[in-house]
Amino acid sequence: MPLTFRIESAIDGALARAGGGAPPPRLTSALHHAVKPGGARIRPTISLSVALACGDDDPGTADRAAAAIELIHCASLVHDDLPCFDDAAIRRGKLTVHRAYSEPLAVLAGDSLIILAFEELSRATPARGLPLVAELARFTGMPHGICAGQGWESEDEIDLATYHRAKTGALFTAATRMGAIAAGHDPEPWTELGARIGEAFQVADDLLDATQTEMQTGKPMGQDALHDRPSAVGQLGIPGAIRRLEDILSGAIASIPACPGEAMLAAMVRKTAERLTPVHHRTPAE
Amino acid sequence: MPLTFRIESAIDGALARAGGGAPPPRLTSALHHAVKPGGARIRPTISLSVALACGDDDPGTADRAAAAIELIHCASLVHDDLPCFDDAAIRRGKLTVHRAYSEPLAVLAGDSLIILAFEELSRATPARGLPLVAELARFTGMPHGICAGQGWESEDEIDLATYHRAKTGALFTAATRMGAIAAGHDPEPWTELGARIGEAFQVADDLLDATQTEMQTGKPMGQDALHDRPSAVGQLGIPGAIRRLEDILSGAIASIPACPGEAMLAAMVRKTAERLTPVHHRTPAE
Repeated sequence: MPLTFRIESAIDGALARAGGGAPPPRLTSALHHAVKPGGARIRPTISLSVALACGDDDPGTADRAAAAIELIHCASLVHDDLPCFDDAAIRRGKLTVHRAYSEPLAVLAGDSLIILAFEELSRATPARGLPLVAELARFTGMPHGICAGQGWESEDEIDLATYHRAKTGALFTAATRMGAIAAGHDPEPWTELGARIGEAFQVADDLLDATQTEMQTGKPMGQDALHDRPSAVGQLGIPGAIRRLEDILSGAIASIPACPGEAMLAAMVRKTAERLTPVHHRTPAE
Repeated sequence: MPLTFRIESAIDGALARAGGGAPPPRLTSALHHAVKPGGARIRPTISLSVALACGDDDPGTADRAAAAIELIHCASLVHDDLPCFDDAAIRRGKLTVHRAYSEPLAVLAGDSLIILAFEELSRATPARGLPLVAELARFTGMPHGICAGQGWESEDEIDLATYHRAKTGALFTAATRMGAIAAGHDPEPWTELGARIGEAFQVADDLLDATQTEMQTGKPMGQDALHDRPSAVGQLGIPGAIRRLEDILSGAIASIPACPGEAMLAAMVRKTAERLTPVHHRTPAE
């Protein structure tokens, strides 16, 4: 079964449960708007790929873990787009939730999606569900998850590596580790792969923000410079950031633990790298 | 050990974990501001009281359940106070989180506290942890939890009972049910007690909002009328709402399941009722 089908089915199942009974219609609609149609679903793809590499002996749990990661990622996008943060009008080529609905409904949609992510994990096989809850909380909350990463933007003194590791890297690390746990494996050997993919993704995102147009990406660009946010491009320049991205991706592939699905996973990382190539291909070194 | 001590210790433990390592200092401080010092801690008191009535054979799990409920309650207050909802300046006699820190930090503090609540449950005894996660999610998210309740405020057509049951009642129902689960008991017989306490609390809150001053309560009053929100006072008038409150509390005490701690629990409900008496004592019928 293609990963995309599994991921969308798991997400649709979660949304159907959140919209069951007779819930408030506009908030229900706002949840759909925030989650469907998705972006590249990179995080759940990584999570399911690791679960498959680990034998995928419990597909229901692996699907729920993947859905949980994507739901909480969507929640973070909805809250990041709010007027008090990026004040973004466009996300994934359509209006952001607060523009399409309202600011109250965007706050509530984010909250509901965070809770829905944990609710999905509560439906996992019992012995694996609670460790998955612990992982998701660890990599999304305080002190080191994506909330902490966003929190660093309110500080005067900020370490770029710490900031990126929490804001962007944490959920990629959660993805590889949760994929392993969902398949009954030790998550530790999978930590580095997630961290490196996350690092690559952040550098690529900084490069996109600095070089692409809103027309090309479907969201407002130049936000880092506009909001005076720390970025790899600001620190290393464009050529330096491109070299950094190449190094990180090589390291990611090298870090994949020996396992039956090793070649498939390396292909997945290479495919993720290709997604980051709009900038990659324009490096003067090539 | 007094319940208050257990509750505050459990909350302090959670906050210490959220503030461990080297997290962003202002967000860490905002979490403390949102949670300490607390209000009456009514929800965790109910939860622990039910756990005790059920034998309290796993105090660590009961404490984590109580802390989780209070943390998510505090999260809901922080988000409810935001400019796009109540735009409140004062909560529990001090500045609200967005006024004391900033709007971004208030959004993040709420998100972090939601996640921290689930993280606390991930530390419960494994066999009880996952059912507790399911309960907390069910009564806080969509379609019937406190997020849904708040979501009804964005609808033109609204059923008052459905709205109150979700917005305020849900977390009281979670409190009694989670107390039972934490002590290894079936939650079903405890549902009605939580629902009735929640109903009483909502009617009392509507009465306070309609009749008290900001000086007496430490938060802005008259918000229901100001925001044109549905309320028991608006629907029944003040005398009608007071009669309703008395009926509900009698029903709550009558609903307590036969158990060794039955008398203690009835006393707890009566004490909760006394907390609601500023209005109760001024009824013309007395």
